[in-house]
Amino acid sequence: MNEIKIFCPATIANLSCGFDVLGLCLDTAGDEMIIKKSNTKGVRINKIVGADLPLETENNVAGVSLLAMLEEVEADFGFEIEIYKNIKAGSGIGSSAASSAGAVFGANELLGKPFTRKELIKFAMQGEKLASGNAHADNVAPALLGGFTLVRSSNPLDVIRIESPEELFATVIHPQIELKTSDARSVLKKTVSLKSAITQWGNVGGLVAGLYTKDYDLIGRSLHDEIIEPIRSLLIPGFNLIKNSALENGALGAGISGSGPSIFSLCRGNEIAQKIAAGMGKIYDDLDVPYEIHVSKINPDGIKIISTNP
Amino acid sequence: MNEIKIFCPATIANLSCGFDVLGLCLDTAGDEMIIKKSNTKGVRINKIVGADLPLETENNVAGVSLLAMLEEVEADFGFEIEIYKNIKAGSGIGSSAASSAGAVFGANELLGKPFTRKELIKFAMQGEKLASGNAHADNVAPALLGGFTLVRSSNPLDVIRIESPEELFATVIHPQIELKTSDARSVLKKTVSLKSAITQWGNVGGLVAGLYTKDYDLIGRSLHDEIIEPIRSLLIPGFNLIKNSALENGALGAGISGSGPSIFSLCRGNEIAQKIAAGMGKIYDDLDVPYEIHVSKINPDGIKIISTNP
Repeated sequence: MNEIKIFCPATIANLSCGFDVLGLCLDTAGDEMIIKKSNTKGVRINKIVGADLPLETENNVAGVSLLAMLEEVEADFGFEIEIYKNIKAGSGIGSSAASSAGAVFGANELLGKPFTRKELIKFAMQGEKLASGNAHADNVAPALLGGFTLVRSSNPLDVIRIESPEELFATVIHPQIELKTSDARSVLKKTVSLKSAITQWGNVGGLVAGLYTKDYDLIGRSLHDEIIEPIRSLLIPGFNLIKNSALENGALGAGISGSGPSIFSLCRGNEIAQKIAAGMGKIYDDLDVPYEIHVSKINPDGIKIISTNP
Repeated sequence: MNEIKIFCPATIANLSCGFDVLGLCLDTAGDEMIIKKSNTKGVRINKIVGADLPLETENNVAGVSLLAMLEEVEADFGFEIEIYKNIKAGSGIGSSAASSAGAVFGANELLGKPFTRKELIKFAMQGEKLASGNAHADNVAPALLGGFTLVRSSNPLDVIRIESPEELFATVIHPQIELKTSDARSVLKKTVSLKSAITQWGNVGGLVAGLYTKDYDLIGRSLHDEIIEPIRSLLIPGFNLIKNSALENGALGAGISGSGPSIFSLCRGNEIAQKIAAGMGKIYDDLDVPYEIHVSKINPDGIKIISTNP
């Protein structure tokens, strides 16, 4: 195989009560990447379409992720990368993660798969470190593994993949405003009340149980964030209106995607997901906030191969 | 049925990272109760063997639990209760819960089962309120349902039962010292760092995932308590020695049972559980601390019927 074209999905991290630990993979929103073998060793980003991002390998999340991987495996050829961005940077649905995870996934295929998908996570985390200063797995784990992922521990890294109930759909609305991750992070308090923390870990337990038992009601009852959402949601225009609209239209729960500004909801079935999308859109229409909406089932596979050239 | 004799199991609450939400049911440690129909309406505690506890119905946890139940169901007869205590009060393995849950379970059987086991929890919680001032379900839920229980929320009550992996065994050592629940509670801090809270809910997610997937290693990796144990363990003699000994002898994890002073460990298989028990015992022998030890598989059924009289 000399060339591979892949789909690199968007992801939702900081899933409600599962702040910093729970994420999921989307199916209809994502980038495409083409990765080719080259006679010249090393990694080159040849083309980025749809976003104004650095082409220098060391300044590009895809580049640094792949360089991290190449420290652990011998390659007798080089890599040329083209990135076709659809996920907007700063949207809160894992734009940098899609590129970081895509680069190592594609190169791993060209190398004959020396690493499992799970083993690729730690390399892609280096792209996240470049993007946000923090080598976290919240988005690269679901992008690589699909379904839901629980990052039980970051150090040492311990990621558990959890199958999604089949009928679970996500609706994500991205208000086209700028919300810097650093700002979203700076509003967080360093301490929380023990009472709220207990509520939160009860809900994390409930959400994980709901996923394993495919109990949609339990998933809904558990999708509450006592700690982060009340603070961060103040930075997102119309957050409460959007969330309430989603719940009124049948969402199991709703919350901030990643560090925002995107807002997600989960529901049972495509029909309700579309209805939620329409309701969310109307609110931002009324508020004159420009937006994008994604409706997607949960992607069970993660990154997918679109085509290969021998 | 005019009379029922039941086994009322001991339970472990505050299971490591699952403080205030996760508990489990033991199989070999527990009380017995006999509950009889009586021509005289109302509830009488006729006999308590093995403990110095109040016989007045309103001052007895079994009595108040049953009275709470009788507010929601019509009974054209009364109840006479005998309690044979084996679980020591203040041991941290659910002594009051066994009596509270036992009373409502037994009476429910005599009444022809108007309530499910899950519905009985809220009545038994009134016994806990009498015992500790706090109507919690941490012990009565696993006593009634068996296996593991997650109290996702106390208000409204939302309890999820989780099947135990079959080979999971508990070893519990009870140092015969007095540790008041109020003291164990007063040492807790009212706030925790966000970082520790995230670690904790990552572990709760991991523990629940490990139980559903019967992944003993994941259960072990998740059995950490960043928040309560470092503080409360200071009240328990030789806690670190006992815990380290359990881990050295093959425990998946260990921690404080309930609010102490009992210390539990979980492991795979009876053989390792016995080895852990021997190691724990030796440490308290050396420290001259009197103790009791229980080795038990996880009880999948909760309270069991020993015999009935028609």
